[in-house]
Amino acid sequence: MRIAQVAPLFESVPPKAYGGTERVVSYLTEALVAMGHDVTLFASGDSITSAELVPIVERSLRLDPRHPDWLPWHTIMLDEVFRRAARFDVIHFHVDFLHYPMARRCPTPCLTTFHGRLDLPDLAPLHRHFADVPVVSISDHQRQPLPHARWMGTVYHGLPGGLYRFQPQPDDYFAFVGRISPEKRVDRAIEISKACGTRLRIAAKVDEADRRYFEQQIRPRLDDRLIEFVGEIDDRQKNEFIGRARALLFPIDWPEPFGLVMIEAFACGTPVIAFRCGSVPEVMVDGVTGFVVDTMEEAVAAARRVGQLERRRCREVFDTRFTAPVMAERYLDIYRQLRVEWPTRATPGAWAGTAWRDEGAWRPAGLGHTPQVA
Amino acid sequence: MRIAQVAPLFESVPPKAYGGTERVVSYLTEALVAMGHDVTLFASGDSITSAELVPIVERSLRLDPRHPDWLPWHTIMLDEVFRRAARFDVIHFHVDFLHYPMARRCPTPCLTTFHGRLDLPDLAPLHRHFADVPVVSISDHQRQPLPHARWMGTVYHGLPGGLYRFQPQPDDYFAFVGRISPEKRVDRAIEISKACGTRLRIAAKVDEADRRYFEQQIRPRLDDRLIEFVGEIDDRQKNEFIGRARALLFPIDWPEPFGLVMIEAFACGTPVIAFRCGSVPEVMVDGVTGFVVDTMEEAVAAARRVGQLERRRCREVFDTRFTAPVMAERYLDIYRQLRVEWPTRATPGAWAGTAWRDEGAWRPAGLGHTPQVA
Repeated sequence: MRIAQVAPLFESVPPKAYGGTERVVSYLTEALVAMGHDVTLFASGDSITSAELVPIVERSLRLDPRHPDWLPWHTIMLDEVFRRAARFDVIHFHVDFLHYPMARRCPTPCLTTFHGRLDLPDLAPLHRHFADVPVVSISDHQRQPLPHARWMGTVYHGLPGGLYRFQPQPDDYFAFVGRISPEKRVDRAIEISKACGTRLRIAAKVDEADRRYFEQQIRPRLDDRLIEFVGEIDDRQKNEFIGRARALLFPIDWPEPFGLVMIEAFACGTPVIAFRCGSVPEVMVDGVTGFVVDTMEEAVAAARRVGQLERRRCREVFDTRFTAPVMAERYLDIYRQLRVEWPTRATPGAWAGTAWRDEGAWRPAGLGHTPQVA
Repeated sequence: MRIAQVAPLFESVPPKAYGGTERVVSYLTEALVAMGHDVTLFASGDSITSAELVPIVERSLRLDPRHPDWLPWHTIMLDEVFRRAARFDVIHFHVDFLHYPMARRCPTPCLTTFHGRLDLPDLAPLHRHFADVPVVSISDHQRQPLPHARWMGTVYHGLPGGLYRFQPQPDDYFAFVGRISPEKRVDRAIEISKACGTRLRIAAKVDEADRRYFEQQIRPRLDDRLIEFVGEIDDRQKNEFIGRARALLFPIDWPEPFGLVMIEAFACGTPVIAFRCGSVPEVMVDGVTGFVVDTMEEAVAAARRVGQLERRRCREVFDTRFTAPVMAERYLDIYRQLRVEWPTRATPGAWAGTAWRDEGAWRPAGLGHTPQVA
């Protein structure tokens, strides 16, 4: 199939450091190429891919002070994508909703995956308006604020099978991985570990926005022989860090849309103790990949018996449900369904002159200049 | 002519208080209707117009805490505009650039007026890319950062002829009207007035962002028998306030794209002493509507002799160049030119199925639901 993947331009694909969306777009793109599909990736120019890359801006925007405004670049990207629409069997967007007005007029089927939380108030009227635009959620729970959207399915994130090594024998510590922010509740992780008398190792980034929270709420709790604050770690270190843990603690307190770190743990064979929030009950297989808990008491009890779980079963769940090829197959099913459902007949009526800049279209002589394409 | 005007949704059209863009859109819309044109206004639902209003959101966004995010609403507006494209002879946008990818594919001619400064770094690559999208500046100077854009002309703002009354006999004070912010340089106005020994009356809003500047830099300078800080005034008060002034001081220090207050002064017959920045040399007729100056010395000298100018001539310049009907005529010229140049032939090739949601277009049975339009 001829597939376009449209990534945000904030980070490269894959990202140099953090950037959940761009990571998943990379995994999906590479999996589709490996399956023999003809994939074109619209992304920042510092992206690395085995697909055909259409670079929209030289460097990813987040770290480039020359390009403070994201909206012009994403507008250019939409134009570049739709100009090539006839080349693709499906166009898959990972960039929120800017493209909706064009997507619903495009003869090539367009799909959109949401990567963030959807409970922002203005998204509901938006999706009542664009109730025909096909969208995909990354967990069923993520959909709740937008009942009017045209849900094509939930597709869970997937990781390349070889990205994390299975670790049969853990060391004697719990791991916490993520940002230090109020909704991630590292304070709960500390409390659980202390209640169990088990070491907690924390690998976490502190964003500028969370610096004050960290200093006031968290740093005072780190002063304990059981607690070790490791700071930021890279992907390679993460494999070792999570893989050697007896369990990953995921005591979140917000509607997590997916939670990549849970399936990273599964890939290592490390069970997860997770609070019932957002995607957690869907991603977890309770009693197999760890425990889903509702209270601190349950969390402590779960942490005490988590060593009884078979680590091999965690990896099996990962292999069955959360690899990049599994994710790619799910998307391919939806792409095929869309191609059947998408309206393709030419329309008499409005917009007859449309697409005069698009590939394969007649170029008018009316405008006395040559349009430039960056 | 059947004309669509597309306004920002931040303020109503016209705005309840501040909102330069929405004010000008209102003046243009009403002038076109008065000339007998068939005008449709896309704007917030609390707008008041004699055109046909297509309300996109119930209330203007700036003051509505229920709608913190502007982008979904402007995305909905684009869809509503292009859905009706076949109804119009021209579509005139006042909302930056979000619509460019659609505008260049639309069979109805689309025009965009910029209302703000254009020296933001990412606008240059945007307009190299969209070098075929027709745009209008509100001063020639405003264009400088974007030489690649397709400039159709400069159209100066205009006010309804009866909005401000001509005042033949001024009182003995200078007026300053605007925001208190570093680039407006009320400090210069104070200095000029003191040097002339003439009273200065300041009618100005202090935005939250400028509060500190006001307290530290400006408030200490207000403690003088010559200086009077009036605070915010409404439109009716403005007529009296500007009209009774011997001159308006406009000692700006930034690339002003237009500067509505200058033509408000002309309408009252009040000459303006303005620093040579941005649009100033274009809007002013030096030695007739006041003086254009480069230094404080020149400003003080100009302020001393400004009483010699004939106030009637200021009003004449206003009547000739800056009324809403004059503005509307200029735009109509450009609309007519666009209709000739715009490519209108149907395109074989890409995007054949386009517009399946648009009016007059065939509606496919493929999608098993009824699209909803808010």
